[in-house]
Amino acid sequence: MDILKKLKQLGLELPTPTTPGGNYASVNIRNDIAYIAIQFPIWNNKALYQGKLGKELSTSDGYSALGICALNVLSQINAHSSINQFIGLNHLDIYFQATAEWDEGPRLADGASDLFLQVLENKGQHSRAIFGVERLPKNFSVGLTATCTMATRAREEMT
Amino acid sequence: MDILKKLKQLGLELPTPTTPGGNYASVNIRNDIAYIAIQFPIWNNKALYQGKLGKELSTSDGYSALGICALNVLSQINAHSSINQFIGLNHLDIYFQATAEWDEGPRLADGASDLFLQVLENKGQHSRAIFGVERLPKNFSVGLTATCTMATRAREEMT
Amino acid sequence: MDILKKLKQLGLELPTPTTPGGNYASVNIRNDIAYIAIQFPIWNNKALYQGKLGKELSTSDGYSALGICALNVLSQINAHSSINQFIGLNHLDIYFQATAEWDEGPRLADGASDLFLQVLENKGQHSRAIFGVERLPKNFSVGLTATCTMATRAREEMT
Repeated sequence: MDILKKLKQLGLELPTPTTPGGNYASVNIRNDIAYIAIQFPIWNNKALYQGKLGKELSTSDGYSALGICALNVLSQINAHSSINQFIGLNHLDIYFQATAEWDEGPRLADGASDLFLQVLENKGQHSRAIFGVERLPKNFSVGLTATCTMATRAREEMT
Repeated sequence: MDILKKLKQLGLELPTPTTPGGNYASVNIRNDIAYIAIQFPIWNNKALYQGKLGKELSTSDGYSALGICALNVLSQINAHSSINQFIGLNHLDIYFQATAEWDEGPRLADGASDLFLQVLENKGQHSRAIFGVERLPKNFSVGLTATCTMATRAREEMT
Repeated sequence: MDILKKLKQLGLELPTPTTPGGNYASVNIRNDIAYIAIQFPIWNNKALYQGKLGKELSTSDGYSALGICALNVLSQINAHSSINQFIGLNHLDIYFQATAEWDEGPRLADGASDLFLQVLENKGQHSRAIFGVERLPKNFSVGLTATCTMATRAREEMT
């Protein structure tokens, strides 16, 4: 499966991978697992979708924001090693900022889940957790941390 | 070790596994790790223990609620593949909603830890994290995300 | 690489490993992954850095607090098995308590990241997530959960 080709077919682009905001790696591969650092709705270095769901932002905005987070995950993997060594998605942790009344977490989270399944097809299968946090950096409405499984070749390239 | 037999000996039942509230898998196995999506205190499709610890719910309520989350984890694994391919529990992430004054996290978290160790014995050994979140879906007081190690056979069945 | 020797060269000590506050293991190794339970800024059983960032504590305090959390991670691994079986750090989850205005998460998180990279050098490479939670146990300002990769020998010793 050629993921870059599939993205093109879907009319999707990968954003420029963000540079780490601190002393860490955006992608860290150990044995056959890739750990991708928390990604935010940033498109080519422009911060988007800042604020609280249910206040400055709608659920639909949050859904789009998580789609961008998911594209950033793919962009980070692609920048780090060949995205075609990608075997499958493992798990997503999804964080959001919202008002006390807002309660549409599952619909929100599908913004990331739908994107991954659309692009990666059966390799995109994943479990997930979602919860509302007190605050995300730069007032981002959502954040996404992912792990995935990589072909052993990726490991060998690392050593 | 026959986990279903052990549950019966302890007088415990598994609840009906919940269906995913979105576009994800309740159990995702990649190589030898099973990732179980966040589970809530739901018994046979009935939502229980909603509210905040220290307000609508006591610590004892939360302890019971996490026991139900733990049984839901086991039910999901059992529904996905033979629970007897279960090698051992890895790690638990435990989330809760509470008032500003409530501070009995470790006792709360033992609601899940005690259940797993009682049922799984030495295979139930795990590390854990616990923190108070701003909000969980449907006003659930607690949530639980787990990872565990599965026998290779489980992996082969997946492919 | 002799990690204990490196710590000494840097003038760093390991704190006494904390005992679990509940029915869980501080370190749980399954196959080649070590899961380390959430660590707090505790030095030799003394709770430090309690309160909120931006209120009782400065960003610099939080940076120091996370350095202590990181040393507790190393102390737990060292108490569990030889720290020299440590292959590399995988991922960090960093939690904090702060006022609504405080927004220096990346600088804060470097308190753990810098310490790990200083002591473990290239084995310290990691990805991370950071988010502000509603509350941590005992009013701790920060918490840290880590996973790392261990040599197979560690696994064999476990079985």
